[in-house]
Amino acid sequence: MARKVLILMGSDSDLKVMNEAAKALHALEVETEIRISSAHRVPDKTMKLARSARENGFGAIIAGAGLAAHLPGVVAACTTLPVIGVPIQGGAIQGIDALYAIVQMPKGIPVATVAVNGAFNAGLLAAQILATADDELATRLDSYRAQLASEVEAKDDKLQTIGVEAYLNN
Amino acid sequence: MARKVLILMGSDSDLKVMNEAAKALHALEVETEIRISSAHRVPDKTMKLARSARENGFGAIIAGAGLAAHLPGVVAACTTLPVIGVPIQGGAIQGIDALYAIVQMPKGIPVATVAVNGAFNAGLLAAQILATADDELATRLDSYRAQLASEVEAKDDKLQTIGVEAYLNN
Amino acid sequence: MARKVLILMGSDSDLKVMNEAAKALHALEVETEIRISSAHRVPDKTMKLARSARENGFGAIIAGAGLAAHLPGVVAACTTLPVIGVPIQGGAIQGIDALYAIVQMPKGIPVATVAVNGAFNAGLLAAQILATADDELATRLDSYRAQLASEVEAKDDKLQTIGVEAYLNN
Amino acid sequence: MARKVLILMGSDSDLKVMNEAAKALHALEVETEIRISSAHRVPDKTMKLARSARENGFGAIIAGAGLAAHLPGVVAACTTLPVIGVPIQGGAIQGIDALYAIVQMPKGIPVATVAVNGAFNAGLLAAQILATADDELATRLDSYRAQLASEVEAKDDKLQTIGVEAYLNN
Amino acid sequence: MARKVLILMGSDSDLKVMNEAAKALHALEVETEIRISSAHRVPDKTMKLARSARENGFGAIIAGAGLAAHLPGVVAACTTLPVIGVPIQGGAIQGIDALYAIVQMPKGIPVATVAVNGAFNAGLLAAQILATADDELATRLDSYRAQLASEVEAKDDKLQTIGVEAYLNN
Amino acid sequence: MARKVLILMGSDSDLKVMNEAAKALHALEVETEIRISSAHRVPDKTMKLARSARENGFGAIIAGAGLAAHLPGVVAACTTLPVIGVPIQGGAIQGIDALYAIVQMPKGIPVATVAVNGAFNAGLLAAQILATADDELATRLDSYRAQLASEVEAKDDKLQTIGVEAYLNN
Amino acid sequence: MARKVLILMGSDSDLKVMNEAAKALHALEVETEIRISSAHRVPDKTMKLARSARENGFGAIIAGAGLAAHLPGVVAACTTLPVIGVPIQGGAIQGIDALYAIVQMPKGIPVATVAVNGAFNAGLLAAQILATADDELATRLDSYRAQLASEVEAKDDKLQTIGVEAYLNN
Amino acid sequence: MARKVLILMGSDSDLKVMNEAAKALHALEVETEIRISSAHRVPDKTMKLARSARENGFGAIIAGAGLAAHLPGVVAACTTLPVIGVPIQGGAIQGIDALYAIVQMPKGIPVATVAVNGAFNAGLLAAQILATADDELATRLDSYRAQLASEVEAKDDKLQTIGVEAYLNN
Repeated sequence: MARKVLILMGSDSDLKVMNEAAKALHALEVETEIRISSAHRVPDKTMKLARSARENGFGAIIAGAGLAAHLPGVVAACTTLPVIGVPIQGGAIQGIDALYAIVQMPKGIPVATVAVNGAFNAGLLAAQILATADDELATRLDSYRAQLASEVEAKDDKLQTIGVEAYLNN
Repeated sequence: MARKVLILMGSDSDLKVMNEAAKALHALEVETEIRISSAHRVPDKTMKLARSARENGFGAIIAGAGLAAHLPGVVAACTTLPVIGVPIQGGAIQGIDALYAIVQMPKGIPVATVAVNGAFNAGLLAAQILATADDELATRLDSYRAQLASEVEAKDDKLQTIGVEAYLNN
Repeated sequence: MARKVLILMGSDSDLKVMNEAAKALHALEVETEIRISSAHRVPDKTMKLARSARENGFGAIIAGAGLAAHLPGVVAACTTLPVIGVPIQGGAIQGIDALYAIVQMPKGIPVATVAVNGAFNAGLLAAQILATADDELATRLDSYRAQLASEVEAKDDKLQTIGVEAYLNN
Repeated sequence: MARKVLILMGSDSDLKVMNEAAKALHALEVETEIRISSAHRVPDKTMKLARSARENGFGAIIAGAGLAAHLPGVVAACTTLPVIGVPIQGGAIQGIDALYAIVQMPKGIPVATVAVNGAFNAGLLAAQILATADDELATRLDSYRAQLASEVEAKDDKLQTIGVEAYLNN
Repeated sequence: MARKVLILMGSDSDLKVMNEAAKALHALEVETEIRISSAHRVPDKTMKLARSARENGFGAIIAGAGLAAHLPGVVAACTTLPVIGVPIQGGAIQGIDALYAIVQMPKGIPVATVAVNGAFNAGLLAAQILATADDELATRLDSYRAQLASEVEAKDDKLQTIGVEAYLNN
Repeated sequence: MARKVLILMGSDSDLKVMNEAAKALHALEVETEIRISSAHRVPDKTMKLARSARENGFGAIIAGAGLAAHLPGVVAACTTLPVIGVPIQGGAIQGIDALYAIVQMPKGIPVATVAVNGAFNAGLLAAQILATADDELATRLDSYRAQLASEVEAKDDKLQTIGVEAYLNN
Repeated sequence: MARKVLILMGSDSDLKVMNEAAKALHALEVETEIRISSAHRVPDKTMKLARSARENGFGAIIAGAGLAAHLPGVVAACTTLPVIGVPIQGGAIQGIDALYAIVQMPKGIPVATVAVNGAFNAGLLAAQILATADDELATRLDSYRAQLASEVEAKDDKLQTIGVEAYLNN
Repeated sequence: MARKVLILMGSDSDLKVMNEAAKALHALEVETEIRISSAHRVPDKTMKLARSARENGFGAIIAGAGLAAHLPGVVAACTTLPVIGVPIQGGAIQGIDALYAIVQMPKGIPVATVAVNGAFNAGLLAAQILATADDELATRLDSYRAQLASEVEAKDDKLQTIGVEAYLNN
């Protein structure tokens, strides 16, 4: 049976950004579960979600957090499933704090970090991980890439046809 | 058959750091192939390596680069295998340039970024990815985690037994 | 015959900024071609554009990109024409990521980097490059500089005449 | 009975820096306990230490960590004792990553952050916290401040007496 | 008698942010006094407030400042009460200047620094400090933590019940 | 005869910010002259203004610039009058580029740098410089300081009288 | 007749780094002239060198500077030849100050910026600029690129032949 | 009678750097007094030195500090003499913390900031300030500038005579 992806965040203020991960996965026909569970406010629940993820049918976890973003690392400490961290933009330091707090994990416990607010790419990355053992998903990913390419080509064709001024006024 | 991990770097000056990824994988009994192939000097060869990786039996790619680190992104553009990027410390900006150039990938092409010089964790992450479809590897990863834990516990035991001064002079 | 300038970007979201390069060049009577071609989504097309640029009558290439901005470097790897990189402002790191990803190119493949969002100056720089072998263009560049100077002088004259308060309320 | 201070770190590589906190506290006659307990490698042990700290006679906790420094925040999530965080210098980002990962805690769970490698000041701060309910400790802190002042005054006196050149050659 | 918390700022432009500290403390039934007193404009008054704080019944001081934020450090130099520093966001450097100017205190004079604009957490931290000698306050802090946890749990329950789309449109 | 202060900027887009310097000086009865003169567009005029400033009765020069802010340094190279540099906020790097480009002058040619957008303080500093030889101006500066102090005291008095809520709603 | 490249620096402390530009150009058979001429200490001489460069047979100028690096911009203001700026590493900010001071040039006066300490690439870029009107130089640049590629391929061949351990011990 | 310059630092660890200011001033025949007086350890003494500086014959104050560098601002708050701040390199943030803590002074109290470790330039700036009312000192400053220029010219002459290789081996 195909594995699902668990999407975690510590606060509902991150839900809109993190839902992009679900959108990417749904477009690729991967099932998701989205949970609000803070590393600081409900650490036990969070650790339990992480520890039971593999047996609950998840193949990867996406965790998003802003500021001193500990959620991805705390989750990664409680599972050997691949954990993808999404730094969330916000506050005075605008997500560079979250980026450092997620990507600079010490030896032993990696977190696969994507761009600040890069939840959509986190979803794609989770799909690419699951696709290492799912050829049909790999094929759907190829189609997605082909679609990306043809979108760029279509835009360039349009630009060559109508010119810059018309394109910008469109 | 178990999938291998392809480890790429653009220059042999990164070999010592990137070999840590191989060490992590070998300890977990995952096979690796290490190649020197620059995104800027031999772009065609690099793209060919990336494009043929899945059919050549690789399940993940680790790519390390310093400065304006384009290698992981260029590789990721040519495969839907998960690509793990390792920013390499060096130059005046000390790897923060490489971190930004790897992690801030645009929508559509994710790179799973680890810490600056975090090649060992990149190896672990690659193993965690392969373990999503390899229960024995997952068990070996659990053992590795248990070993990490017992090492910390042993150090704390020693500290409680001999005290700080003796520990530091040891 | 006078050489043209190829202006590249990976996404039409950069078109408005990058069109400033075209404006600078058109004011100096240099012909341009603007193409949308992503290093990550259509790498082969991008490399082909770069590799054929010299024979297609281009004398310089301007490439703009934001975030992990690989386009200028990927283009520079495929041609020995001078490549001018324009970091585009955007995202959480506001273009400093793009600046580092463009300017910190490794030994062997230079990119002539201008300011974040400095597409107009990229156009001027391309013209200055073409003018090394085009005395008439050099003369037009001198006129542009003289015009810049007289604009500043006119503003200072106005300020001395009407005073600060009137100037600011103007 | 006077309360003790718990000093935590995730790795013995931080022991030398963190021992400065113990030195400050011992000079002020405050008892300490130093433990190695990682937030990522032994999360349950770490949380247990934090949760039992108040009943075990501790009045404050000092936690030091480098890189993506989660230890102080994880500890703070498990106790309402004041938790003092010490960012440890190291790695490519030299402790600014640890500073951000410690100080930028989200609403609800504060960490009292000191300077990068500021373990000695962390010890002083812990003593100042305990001194809010311990007048004799407050008096010892006053003496420490007086000693700081007289050391500076003695240095200035010496400088005025022997002059800059002699002082620098001393 | 229960100790109060002194909340200081150098300018009334910081009052709105700093009032969050008072709100946190009032919710925990801790008395506060809010004063405007600049380290640069009225240094003597500021130092006098700091020096008399302990005898005036204060158990901790919270000081907020932006830009070259000297107020917390100047206050800390004049008392051995715990001083909590709040960097205020503003100006071109957006509070990173204030963070550095507050947290990087030299050896001997610590300031307990919280997040940029983290005045609410400063209030909680002050309460946690006072609670080291006030069991009833410690109990109220436990209740606050329990409330934080149940808020997160309620949000997750709601999300599981109504789904992402409904939650976001709510 | 009292010396004047020359206020320079390279573009009228900086006039609004730089006029704050004039306001500070006029309040202290110091005469100013404001000129628009770019280091890059009219270098000769700029250097002539700097070189003739002392003989034209100026006692200090204030120069403001944004981005790669060369104006203060270029002016400082052409006079031994004290030159005060004002980094102007703007562009993607928000004035940190201008700050570095102004304050990090090499050995031999100092520029007295103030805060980003700190033109008002630049005016005060120019007055403080002129006051080293003008006791009446020194007295006016003392009055200004006294006024700053009494403004802060009045705000604190108001706050103590009407309370935080009323103050914030005022 | 083939055009030369003028290489400028403000201090002989930059000579070792900047000589890399000459080496790159000499390998490509481009003639150079290296001059020490500071924008701050001898501004008139510097401007004269820039203004006379085109008529003196130069086709491009390379200017290197550290700290508040004004030299490239000052030179660019005095010529319409392409000016390549090399930020030099050094001081407390390690060349990021120089990078910003060179690359963030205002509208009208571009500087083609390369990596911090990237003098060798500056030389290559100057050659690429001259090659827009010199087919033989373009051919030599192609040969240089081919050589870069074969060096990388040779290293990879060696690595595949002798293995990582032997390669690292070599 | 000629005014003196007061040179302050908080710790004798800054004496070697700050003595460069004295050297610059002595070369220009300006008298100095060097004092160790910390803003945090002996605030009253420091404020007294600042407050009495004008009547004690000083015309400017130079204050150097590292980390959360409060000394220059605290001194500036206690005098209307021009105060020159020198950020001292050190610690994990290498003086950028000190730079921000000195230059970003709030409205009303300016500090004339020089480069990180720029004590020599601070001395020159102090001399330039005193020279606004001391024509002989202004003449000595002109001589110093002429000497700077001739040193650069001599180095360039030597380079033209002996060539790069000989110069570098010299």
